[in-house]
Amino acid sequence: SCTELLISVATPGCNGFPNLESKENYDSDCLLLISVLPADLLTSSLSSLFMQYYINETEIVDFPRFPHRGLLLDTSRHYLPLKAILETLDVMAYNKLNVFHWHIVDDPSFPYESFTFPELSKQGAFSAMTHVYTASDVQTVIEYARLRGIRVIAEFDTPGHTLSWGPGAPGLLTPCYLGKDPSGTYGPINPIFNSTYQFVTSLFQEISSVFPDYFIHLGGDEVDFTCWKSNPDILVFMKKMGFGEDYTKLESYYIQRLLDIVSSLGKGYMVWQEVFDNGVKVRPDTIIHVWKNNLPYAEEMANVTKAGYRALLSAPWYLNRISYGQDWMAAYQVEPLKFTGSTKQKDLVIGGEACMWGEYVDVTNLTPRLWPRAGAVAERLWSNATVRNLQDAYVRLADFRCELLRRGVQAEPLFTGYCDHEFGGF
Amino acid sequence: SCTELLISVATPGCNGFPNLESKENYDSDCLLLISVLPADLLTSSLSSLFMQYYINETEIVDFPRFPHRGLLLDTSRHYLPLKAILETLDVMAYNKLNVFHWHIVDDPSFPYESFTFPELSKQGAFSAMTHVYTASDVQTVIEYARLRGIRVIAEFDTPGHTLSWGPGAPGLLTPCYLGKDPSGTYGPINPIFNSTYQFVTSLFQEISSVFPDYFIHLGGDEVDFTCWKSNPDILVFMKKMGFGEDYTKLESYYIQRLLDIVSSLGKGYMVWQEVFDNGVKVRPDTIIHVWKNNLPYAEEMANVTKAGYRALLSAPWYLNRISYGQDWMAAYQVEPLKFTGSTKQKDLVIGGEACMWGEYVDVTNLTPRLWPRAGAVAERLWSNATVRNLQDAYVRLADFRCELLRRGVQAEPLFTGYCDHEFGGF
Repeated sequence: SCTELLISVATPGCNGFPNLESKENYDSDCLLLISVLPADLLTSSLSSLFMQYYINETEIVDFPRFPHRGLLLDTSRHYLPLKAILETLDVMAYNKLNVFHWHIVDDPSFPYESFTFPELSKQGAFSAMTHVYTASDVQTVIEYARLRGIRVIAEFDTPGHTLSWGPGAPGLLTPCYLGKDPSGTYGPINPIFNSTYQFVTSLFQEISSVFPDYFIHLGGDEVDFTCWKSNPDILVFMKKMGFGEDYTKLESYYIQRLLDIVSSLGKGYMVWQEVFDNGVKVRPDTIIHVWKNNLPYAEEMANVTKAGYRALLSAPWYLNRISYGQDWMAAYQVEPLKFTGSTKQKDLVIGGEACMWGEYVDVTNLTPRLWPRAGAVAERLWSNATVRNLQDAYVRLADFRCELLRRGVQAEPLFTGYCDHEFGGF
Repeated sequence: SCTELLISVATPGCNGFPNLESKENYDSDCLLLISVLPADLLTSSLSSLFMQYYINETEIVDFPRFPHRGLLLDTSRHYLPLKAILETLDVMAYNKLNVFHWHIVDDPSFPYESFTFPELSKQGAFSAMTHVYTASDVQTVIEYARLRGIRVIAEFDTPGHTLSWGPGAPGLLTPCYLGKDPSGTYGPINPIFNSTYQFVTSLFQEISSVFPDYFIHLGGDEVDFTCWKSNPDILVFMKKMGFGEDYTKLESYYIQRLLDIVSSLGKGYMVWQEVFDNGVKVRPDTIIHVWKNNLPYAEEMANVTKAGYRALLSAPWYLNRISYGQDWMAAYQVEPLKFTGSTKQKDLVIGGEACMWGEYVDVTNLTPRLWPRAGAVAERLWSNATVRNLQDAYVRLADFRCELLRRGVQAEPLFTGYCDHEFGGF
């Protein structure tokens, strides 16, 4: 038997940040502990042991099934204060979630303070004074996450979902027409001007340097063609390019140029599944983010991996879509590899992300809506596929929720009952 | 024109408590204000006026459509700390809700500290130390409510929903049998012993004196006959009474005796609709609480009022049954008087109650789940039937929600957007 506790830090990258290839297993040979970071990732598995006075001899076999276990927060539909994001990172670490997908801007608001284009948040945030993330805020999030073994992947979704970009970037969005005249409203990013690509290059240059992770999420979902179709300049461009009536070709034209720009910046990218569905040529190391339910997501997982791309699953984990009762069970019972495909295809599934879209969520209800429900997704992504018993999971999750209350996290109940230490400390 | 602001207090009862007949209108004759209490009920209508520096001349025509505008909280499935109840009373007053229906005990726990039967909470609360309402707590709730023009109606639901009563009241519940032997589990209150009615008399004597409102809610819903059917003593009693196989007759036998007891204590009672559905003979002034959806609730409203009883509507207002999106709209669009019946029948509808049952709700998510959703019900019960426009209501409710944030209430958003003053003060 051995008497030492060794904690060794093994980070494949040399910049101090965790990445997709980071080792996260607790490889125990006489209590030699190897992990990415000696942070909460370790503590969460070991806390119960350390609560005892000493450890005589123990062995830990605990390693993640998938390397990408994420949570998406949406800070555009409602602004989330820095404190709420940091608290969420804490609870992610308790749940061994290791990717914070920051859907930072979208149609309703642009809270990211860009130093290249300060007008974007000045004109596009709900309030340029109070509802923005300063450069310092962003650094705080990134460092707070790093210390907990969590990667931060920023999403700047284009060419749709960009209405809030318009006021701060004149000429960027497509003016919509009503008959022969501009209607005064705007559509997606205008893909026909060189100035658009100059803007995009400068902005993503900034984003690439601000966010250290190798991956940027480029969005690419839900592009509405109505406005493009109304614009006479776009019609001329379509004809010139030989796109006919097929606006997915125009969308692909934009995305293709965007991907080339981001590639040239030395970054990898993730995109929502439409980019793949529309046949845009992407790099082999692209991660396709599966979110739609119109065709069963298992088919999309099969298609994406059959084409040789890496797949990330979110479709069954839109935790914002609440329903009455114990809806964590459906999230828990998902099996990400349950689709028709070869072993090689299954190996291309890097994990999944729970999503908390912000239409109906802000700082008032974020925490109870997330926890412990997102913990069900976290366990599915961490534990072996054979760990599926609902009753056992209920007991674990209910216990864990009481532990969250003890730590001051406003996590909602799974069902009738109580905790020894309730929220608020009574 | 007049220069005085007169506030006159008109309380029909002489004990200082509001009741079902209390006047709540702002009857303005040269700014003479008449109301039950000079409390928040007044301020909520007048606060916008008082925000101006002075009032030259104004007239207020604002009175409630229904006299009973309630909210049910369930403190048995989860314990709610005193502070959460008091905060809810504050927000009820802002919304001009005037009845707090306190579903205080049920199967999972018995948090009410009875001085007649202290063992009930000692054995039946989740924790006799921390998860109970002391006599002082109950008085605090009643007085806090009174100062806000809110009545407190306590519900002690019998003969079902009483599992938590068992440990502290030996012999009260029906022992269930498995074949010839008791199984060790218990069913509803045992209706066949005189000791049962002695217990019930003593307990409701206490309840009648503790809760000043004329009405007590006696429950009477969802009685499961399985256990009664298994018990040989019950079978003997059924035969003796000539009830045949009809256990609703046994249920009615119990309820009848309970109603007589409560009547003799000088109290009125409210009951869930099953008591009426099962044909129990109730006093003419009984309030029948409509909650079921198996037959359309409008039919039940018609039946109840046709039989000459007063009706209280909750069926479409189970706010615990959350769904994705703007579900306040369905609650808002309810028209309580939309059923087939005479004017006399319609006059018997005293109002409604929003219900927040506690299976999935405790102090961590109560407030965001209640507000501003319960405000939609409050407006339906206060305002004229013609006030129904959804877009207008959205604007009012969204504004009001921002005002709640300003007052420190953790009210959730209706949809995408922001408030100048967010929760937490950023």
